[in-house]
Amino acid sequence: MAATLTTLVNHQCRLAVRPVGLPTAANWQFTEEAVAEPTEGGVLIKVLALSLDPAMRGWMNEGKSYIPPVGIGEVMRAGGVGVVIASRNPAFAVGDHVTGGPGVQAYWSVAADQLRRSGLAKIDLRAGTLTQWLNVLGMPGMTGYFGLMDVGQPKPGETVVVSGAAGAVGQTVGQIAKIQGCRVVGIAGGPAKCEWVVKELGFDACIDYKAGPVKEGLRQHCPAGVDVYFDNVGGDILDDVLARINRKARIIICGAISQYNNTTPVQGPKNYLSLLVNRARMEGIVVFDYADRYHVAIAEMAGYLKDGRMKSKEDVVDGGIAAFPGALPMLFSGANFGKLVLKVADA
Amino acid sequence: MAATLTTLVNHQCRLAVRPVGLPTAANWQFTEEAVAEPTEGGVLIKVLALSLDPAMRGWMNEGKSYIPPVGIGEVMRAGGVGVVIASRNPAFAVGDHVTGGPGVQAYWSVAADQLRRSGLAKIDLRAGTLTQWLNVLGMPGMTGYFGLMDVGQPKPGETVVVSGAAGAVGQTVGQIAKIQGCRVVGIAGGPAKCEWVVKELGFDACIDYKAGPVKEGLRQHCPAGVDVYFDNVGGDILDDVLARINRKARIIICGAISQYNNTTPVQGPKNYLSLLVNRARMEGIVVFDYADRYHVAIAEMAGYLKDGRMKSKEDVVDGGIAAFPGALPMLFSGANFGKLVLKVADA
Repeated sequence: MAATLTTLVNHQCRLAVRPVGLPTAANWQFTEEAVAEPTEGGVLIKVLALSLDPAMRGWMNEGKSYIPPVGIGEVMRAGGVGVVIASRNPAFAVGDHVTGGPGVQAYWSVAADQLRRSGLAKIDLRAGTLTQWLNVLGMPGMTGYFGLMDVGQPKPGETVVVSGAAGAVGQTVGQIAKIQGCRVVGIAGGPAKCEWVVKELGFDACIDYKAGPVKEGLRQHCPAGVDVYFDNVGGDILDDVLARINRKARIIICGAISQYNNTTPVQGPKNYLSLLVNRARMEGIVVFDYADRYHVAIAEMAGYLKDGRMKSKEDVVDGGIAAFPGALPMLFSGANFGKLVLKVADA
Repeated sequence: MAATLTTLVNHQCRLAVRPVGLPTAANWQFTEEAVAEPTEGGVLIKVLALSLDPAMRGWMNEGKSYIPPVGIGEVMRAGGVGVVIASRNPAFAVGDHVTGGPGVQAYWSVAADQLRRSGLAKIDLRAGTLTQWLNVLGMPGMTGYFGLMDVGQPKPGETVVVSGAAGAVGQTVGQIAKIQGCRVVGIAGGPAKCEWVVKELGFDACIDYKAGPVKEGLRQHCPAGVDVYFDNVGGDILDDVLARINRKARIIICGAISQYNNTTPVQGPKNYLSLLVNRARMEGIVVFDYADRYHVAIAEMAGYLKDGRMKSKEDVVDGGIAAFPGALPMLFSGANFGKLVLKVADA
């Protein structure tokens, strides 16, 4: 085994320059490193796939946030799945499939003292495929589940609206809301995504924000107003929904993808006084707060995947670590259809 | 009695033209009417004082809100206190002091079928003076009490910030928060108000927004961040506080006086993504929702007034109904010091 490992080369994508606006190739640098054998208590993982998430854009900025920014010269932070190829830790065996935060690199070495922080955990491929473990069974799924259930608290018969409906978080939110007995209206870009959201995922309707005013779509598809809005996009769409909320509505602020590449200040919701008029609430969610309950949500979602009540769509980009700089901006143009995954290696 | 009544003339201030920006004399028209005797089950009240509130500006606008707008030609809506001068209702006797929504007029006639909607209720001048019944024992006090306690849910030791600190709602909020064992920081305009808020009301500090950047003041006076923000003003100050909130902070949206006379769109809080980063909440309050618990809050506040833990400052403008158009804009320039009250008649 040791002989094999020493011949392996780790390819890494590091943050070179903080972006202004949309990230480009100029923001990244690629490095190569020899792969070292694990030390006592450590684990070495071959990365198979990485999760590409809108939140990554925020991690590239300087300044206080819910986690520290990625440092210049550091391997870009990323969630991912992989397989254990060497282990000096009794909890992990060679061949185990795992999830965690490997970063944008081909091999992930976790030392004993980093285990807790790394989020390294075994995954069961009987519950879901590798890419599903980055989608509904992964961070996006957990974000959608706890954001909707804990912050949104939907009741049967209520109208739930979710933006980024065909994205990773959005597809989870909408399907969970349907299972809760809600009327579910998605907002997505383009007829293909909207059709898929309605026909495949079973949403009651989906508004194509590229086809016309969202305001009109909300009027048409939310005749009883909006009780819960799960916001992944911010900007004008947030204002359009604020204008349609019901009394005691709950707005979950999960993201604001329309604003992440701004070179001007963030666009604040000018209709926020609708919160006052409607005694409504706008509340942020960060998925890490629910880590001690991930297992509960994963078990529930795995059940839905199995019984067919939940579908999980991933858009897998090939090309390994080198393809990362080109794949990430797909999130911001909406070029991905389903949860964006970067395939790093064959299983 | 009947002979007396028929000689009385009711003076009324009606909305003539909806304002663009700050209301001026041109928005109002004055009318005179003979005062009629009450019909069976009705009550006639001589208005003694009216409550002038920032919310009035919103009632002058067309469009959906938490209550319908005042119609063109209608007597301007206003809360007030008065004394019963004629009654054909056994629940009200001549000489009883009452509160309710008389509107901007000298006499208020409440017919039997309007009693419930009118909010007419007897008040006990042993619990507070007439003007205190428009302040801490009235709608502003109820707004501050339920907004802070029910929506803000302050815990001892937390830092509570309130804007419009010397105003009617602000003074209640700050004093109640002090009683709850919080660190309380006010935001007000000018040294006199700030000094009064600290020295008389016992706030821990007060930031003079006219003297320098609120951001600096928050840094200085909220070293442990902000847990609860009671917002009466909106605009830049809301953004400044959003930049200083703690994890799980609660922001109560009570008003946005900085925006009420805008002729451009409302300024949305561009720092609203701080809600996400901090898993914080922004929630609106409308006092009417708590009507069934007013009596509880009034009893509690009356106790604080009696034992000296709470003070109540009103800024009483003389001049009767005719002075209304000139008095209302004082709220928007911050010319009032304490709860703005229009005296209509001697008790």
